[in-house]
Amino acid sequence: MNFSTLDNIKKTKPLVHSLTNYVTSNDCANILYAIGAKPVMADCILDIKEITPKCDALYINLGTLNKDKIKAINKAVKIANKNDIPVCLDPVGIGASSFRLKYANYLLKKNKVSVIKGNATEIKAFYYGKKLGKGVDTHDKTTNENIYLFINLAKDFAKKTSAIIVITGEIDLISDGEKTYLIKNGHKMMESITGSGCMLGALLSAFLGANKRDALSACASGVCAMGLCGEKAFASMKENDGNLSYRNYLIDEVFNLSQSDFTKGAKYEIR
Amino acid sequence: MNFSTLDNIKKTKPLVHSLTNYVTSNDCANILYAIGAKPVMADCILDIKEITPKCDALYINLGTLNKDKIKAINKAVKIANKNDIPVCLDPVGIGASSFRLKYANYLLKKNKVSVIKGNATEIKAFYYGKKLGKGVDTHDKTTNENIYLFINLAKDFAKKTSAIIVITGEIDLISDGEKTYLIKNGHKMMESITGSGCMLGALLSAFLGANKRDALSACASGVCAMGLCGEKAFASMKENDGNLSYRNYLIDEVFNLSQSDFTKGAKYEIR
Amino acid sequence: MNFSTLDNIKKTKPLVHSLTNYVTSNDCANILYAIGAKPVMADCILDIKEITPKCDALYINLGTLNKDKIKAINKAVKIANKNDIPVCLDPVGIGASSFRLKYANYLLKKNKVSVIKGNATEIKAFYYGKKLGKGVDTHDKTTNENIYLFINLAKDFAKKTSAIIVITGEIDLISDGEKTYLIKNGHKMMESITGSGCMLGALLSAFLGANKRDALSACASGVCAMGLCGEKAFASMKENDGNLSYRNYLIDEVFNLSQSDFTKGAKYEIR
Repeated sequence: MNFSTLDNIKKTKPLVHSLTNYVTSNDCANILYAIGAKPVMADCILDIKEITPKCDALYINLGTLNKDKIKAINKAVKIANKNDIPVCLDPVGIGASSFRLKYANYLLKKNKVSVIKGNATEIKAFYYGKKLGKGVDTHDKTTNENIYLFINLAKDFAKKTSAIIVITGEIDLISDGEKTYLIKNGHKMMESITGSGCMLGALLSAFLGANKRDALSACASGVCAMGLCGEKAFASMKENDGNLSYRNYLIDEVFNLSQSDFTKGAKYEIR
Repeated sequence: MNFSTLDNIKKTKPLVHSLTNYVTSNDCANILYAIGAKPVMADCILDIKEITPKCDALYINLGTLNKDKIKAINKAVKIANKNDIPVCLDPVGIGASSFRLKYANYLLKKNKVSVIKGNATEIKAFYYGKKLGKGVDTHDKTTNENIYLFINLAKDFAKKTSAIIVITGEIDLISDGEKTYLIKNGHKMMESITGSGCMLGALLSAFLGANKRDALSACASGVCAMGLCGEKAFASMKENDGNLSYRNYLIDEVFNLSQSDFTKGAKYEIR
Repeated sequence: MNFSTLDNIKKTKPLVHSLTNYVTSNDCANILYAIGAKPVMADCILDIKEITPKCDALYINLGTLNKDKIKAINKAVKIANKNDIPVCLDPVGIGASSFRLKYANYLLKKNKVSVIKGNATEIKAFYYGKKLGKGVDTHDKTTNENIYLFINLAKDFAKKTSAIIVITGEIDLISDGEKTYLIKNGHKMMESITGSGCMLGALLSAFLGANKRDALSACASGVCAMGLCGEKAFASMKENDGNLSYRNYLIDEVFNLSQSDFTKGAKYEIR
């Protein structure tokens, strides 16, 4: 895997326009600073025309979606497409909400999206065009046993959308339709905090913004980075620490992540 | 007090639909994860129809209330009532805002609410139907001296509304109109952070969602849990720590809370 | 510099009505508690009439501005002016957004503002009436070499607006048009987190609310306080700590800030 993607972030400090939910926006902003990028979170349609074109990547997260946000997203994605700015789409909750699923479908039909990132439930709902899950949580999970099914699904979805498909889970999967990375980094404590998915989406946008010519490596190394930091954050946990300390350690580890962490800790295979 | 309520959360992982303010939503989400529950915070009216029925409890917090939120709340509470999903109402700021007080009154008249949780100012305003306080802060406070007045008020309010009334303060009070718990856990540092009230409301919703057959025990043990964690968080404070460390410790302590903490630390009486 | 301003906050516990963005509102609320003030963040126009007049200061932050927020701000500032409540205006992003710049201009024309606080890019855009920057980030920076230019600009802007002008940067500058403070406290880690600017705006509002008769000292000591805490927070950093720990330390240091910290650490000159 090409890990110089991290250096490119440090060098170019990509500005990531994040249209995301209010629950985890603070975490997303801080993890962008942690990796060496910069956030801008202007979400009023009146701001889009000037803000989006100046950004290096656009992060779209469908959490706490509403009609005003939709207007802003529609405009921002159009501008991003026109200006060759990569778009990372995080279809939060489309496994549980027809409103969001319908909008995600619309967005994908009308625009070019560079990356679609979701858990197994979200990606399956997106692929099959119908909701299958309970809440925002995943039921389907990627495992050693079923991973081949998800590889096929991701490849096909990638080909159909010309987007890189990222499926998060016990095993993370990144595919451009030809090459597929399986990443085995990460820790289950990441499921005990809010926003670990959103933060990954923001991170991927930073990796994309700084590595436009190699979007697949950007995504694979971005997912790997998050997983590694999840492991290191768990290793930092002391007696009496709980999930909020874990969240703090996680962002701190992103701040301290270095090239050599990748070399030492990356666990992946290519299919 | 029945402390198996906590185990029931760990076992059933209740999904709590939280319609709350943006200031403390991240804290609420993380404290729900900490206790073993799961948050979903979809607040657009277009999401309610599908999200609310799948949840185990509904948490309504009137902080940063606005017209869009009201539409979503109205629909969510109606669906919760229809599906026998417990509703915890946190009438933040109704002691200072006629707009919110009026809406809280409307909500209560039109629907069934399982629990009303507020500080002395909020509950008095709700009970008497008029605002008495300054900001979102409390002036009236429960003390050893005046507690009998609040017991009477809570009992009467509980009978009139068929809701469990929770009044927070130096002494916390939980009443279903017949039985009243007084809880003396907690720490004054909890007043030095934003969101301790909101986090309690979210916690109570988790306790309710996992203990539907014994809502009074759910509320009493939930309030006790928060107070205990507030004490333990203070005990964790080291030199140079301030209110933000305290917030972090508080959520961490909820994450680490066990049955035996209740047995050792619960301070309460029944009236 | 008059450092009794801090004591006045501890004594009077000013209530700060904060109309601010959702990304950093939790940090702003917690830093207000940390310094000894209290936040109220009601941002619906239907709440303004009752909430604003009861507050000691009004903090207006243009981050994630939208049309609903504008309505609330317009009303709140009018009420603040009528009731002699100091207004601190934080024109976030006006260097990048014509929408926000236009609104900031309107706000300033129609109302009295006690303090305008921004980075060099924002204040220059406000002064010259046109946008010059990229994102929400600053390009122009105050340095030893160019500080005289910013002093002249600030003095002139202060005279024209009858507001105190605060320009943040490597050197912070506070001017009422006659007297100018240059503050050399602070640490570059403050640029590695989201919300350090917003938190300063909230803090300044607390200082203003508790020190109405000496607004210049309030602002100068408020900026100094934030810078000192930024330095002390950095000194607290341990191995493996990153930007999120730094954010936590920063707010903790505000909580622990004392009179003697000013005496020992304040680095400023008066021009």
